[in-house]
Amino acid sequence: MAKKQHITLPDGFTAAGVHCGIKSSAKQEDLAIIACEVNASTAILTTSNQLVGAPIEWCRELLPKGHGRIRGVVINSGCANVFTGEQGMEDVEDMAERTGKVLGVASDKVLVASTGLIGQRLPIKKVRTGITKAGKALSTTNDEAAARAILTTDTKTKSAVAKTKIGAKEITVAGIAKGSGMIAPSLATMIAVITTDANITGSALRTAVRNASKTSFNAVSVDSDTSTSDIVVAMASGKSRGKLISSRGAGYKEFSDALQEVCDKLAYAVVADGEGATKVIHVHVKGAASKGDAEAAARSIADSPLVKTAMHGADPNWGRIVVALGKSPAKLDPEQLAVSIGETAVFRGGMGVKLSAAKKQKLVKHLKGKDVEITADLGGGKGNFTVMTCDLSRNYIKINADYST
Amino acid sequence: MAKKQHITLPDGFTAAGVHCGIKSSAKQEDLAIIACEVNASTAILTTSNQLVGAPIEWCRELLPKGHGRIRGVVINSGCANVFTGEQGMEDVEDMAERTGKVLGVASDKVLVASTGLIGQRLPIKKVRTGITKAGKALSTTNDEAAARAILTTDTKTKSAVAKTKIGAKEITVAGIAKGSGMIAPSLATMIAVITTDANITGSALRTAVRNASKTSFNAVSVDSDTSTSDIVVAMASGKSRGKLISSRGAGYKEFSDALQEVCDKLAYAVVADGEGATKVIHVHVKGAASKGDAEAAARSIADSPLVKTAMHGADPNWGRIVVALGKSPAKLDPEQLAVSIGETAVFRGGMGVKLSAAKKQKLVKHLKGKDVEITADLGGGKGNFTVMTCDLSRNYIKINADYST
Repeated sequence: MAKKQHITLPDGFTAAGVHCGIKSSAKQEDLAIIACEVNASTAILTTSNQLVGAPIEWCRELLPKGHGRIRGVVINSGCANVFTGEQGMEDVEDMAERTGKVLGVASDKVLVASTGLIGQRLPIKKVRTGITKAGKALSTTNDEAAARAILTTDTKTKSAVAKTKIGAKEITVAGIAKGSGMIAPSLATMIAVITTDANITGSALRTAVRNASKTSFNAVSVDSDTSTSDIVVAMASGKSRGKLISSRGAGYKEFSDALQEVCDKLAYAVVADGEGATKVIHVHVKGAASKGDAEAAARSIADSPLVKTAMHGADPNWGRIVVALGKSPAKLDPEQLAVSIGETAVFRGGMGVKLSAAKKQKLVKHLKGKDVEITADLGGGKGNFTVMTCDLSRNYIKINADYST
Repeated sequence: MAKKQHITLPDGFTAAGVHCGIKSSAKQEDLAIIACEVNASTAILTTSNQLVGAPIEWCRELLPKGHGRIRGVVINSGCANVFTGEQGMEDVEDMAERTGKVLGVASDKVLVASTGLIGQRLPIKKVRTGITKAGKALSTTNDEAAARAILTTDTKTKSAVAKTKIGAKEITVAGIAKGSGMIAPSLATMIAVITTDANITGSALRTAVRNASKTSFNAVSVDSDTSTSDIVVAMASGKSRGKLISSRGAGYKEFSDALQEVCDKLAYAVVADGEGATKVIHVHVKGAASKGDAEAAARSIADSPLVKTAMHGADPNWGRIVVALGKSPAKLDPEQLAVSIGETAVFRGGMGVKLSAAKKQKLVKHLKGKDVEITADLGGGKGNFTVMTCDLSRNYIKINADYST
């Protein structure tokens, strides 16, 4: 028998993933429900893109402060329901209502997320049938089917679990995510659903999710494009029955650490499975005049196509890294700047470091690995920031150019 | 016999392009001199990258206000002389001094530009020999050799000529440029040299070049990376002997228009020959709340890898364009937004426009052409801006990933 694998490990949750026909292949699940047996303390984070899909609008209307009580979330892949006009919002309401019926609650207790093609209407009849089917399949044995059902061009499911003790009580935090570039074939999305049996207030959960995302979901980049459908949903069942956690009270730190671990693992999985990616590039900037400067500098490196192609080719081309730093708005003195790749210093005192054959070999070996570390010390302050990105390969072009809408 | 083709068409200029051994192939010219027979009224624009090569530092020191009187410019390709420490500046001074000797002037009348690999010292002995050789070759019959000598991964030379009348006098503006992505193999550069026989003050020339660049050199993007070596040099011999043009006086408008034409043509040539490019994408944003908003929105589209890959695949994927607009900081109301590709409206009233088969065919035909026009009307003001970029192809990855330093 299949068993609890991740999102139903926290007490109080069930999940289902079914095929309803949005995606053409009958083997591909395309609709998931993750439900809580009580109204879960819930927090959401949504995309920073100015233009958003109808599902995002719905979630923001339900939870205007970003937190509240929710029974479950329904997610479909294959169609993002974005730029679909009034019909798009009617279809979202339809999904929420039907899922509410299945869960025995009103539609305003149901979050909706969609990912996939944009500009096309949902095949709502298929979706309705899928919701009914998923409702019947809800259990603690379908975690992987749910994880599969939210994927687009992702090549694998993404999940993470962390456990911690709050006082004497063990609590579990788990999550699934999809990512994979922003387009697949037309537009994909970063969606993550996190479940926990911690007993935590909605506002504390929101604070914790926002903080954990800063260094995980918000610190990754596949191609610097920001989708109209990005959402992180965190639901807490409270089934661990510990003392209610507030954002300044006992247990918050322990909970946050576990949540951070889950978010970090999911974010890493999203980058590692980025469209065409063959490796993960960790860009660490330290010594910046401010945290903002550090972030700007790190993003300038992580978003540079020249850095990303060099890393793809395992090319120790520190020039591209330094040039990317120079074009960022971060305050920079080349004489103070030190750059290393892996453990090898490559730039210092305004010049490249002369490398022995042995050191060069070590550097290339690092560059050929699955994880590449780039560290830039600006030598001008205490600001630091880390961004994760992936390399840029022919496959990215293939995935994104060879498809015709 | 070869004859004046572009940069020596304006009276008073000679040019040379020679092979001195910086590039390995003996067939490839790698050093150029463009000289004026008098001290030319000269203006420069240099890169916005915070980190710059020694040649850029030299030019800025010679012309701290961006204009002055200069006899000539020496340019080498194959080595950018960037991040080369004090030695780098000594080598620049060496180049300027030797070129000055060849031209019969002091080194402070000679601008220096370099493009190519960064982080490596110039092979200065070869460069010295090259300068002597180029000095002997200076003539009005070597324009194309000079245009070739400044190329890196460019696949063709780039030149432009415009003529105009100022009063009764005909004046000529000509230019050559190199571009081609920012890296080739390690770092390339946008370099342009413009010559004219107009009789214009240095400060007026600088104002004219700065204005012309706003909508040409500064409005193009190949891969959003900014080099440490970018420079535009404009030299006016005054040989047309018209009345001296100041930035508010007679003739300035006519001169500026001719200069704009040359800059526009060179900028187009740079984009069209971008690394791996198969087409030029013209991104027009209008109806923005401000010019700044229009520029931010246009750049967000032009720098989006998803838009660039879609255009490469001739995919009418308006979703990617709208999403790129949404992630820009430009003020945006989706209901007011209208997007068209070529002459075909694709997005309006918050939704995609339903296209007939005939319209779709017309759209795809436009997308398969050499020039693609994207127009986004934000419907919220009078700000407008146009950016030119190229598509993103497998060849870009090939050029930039398959090389190992």
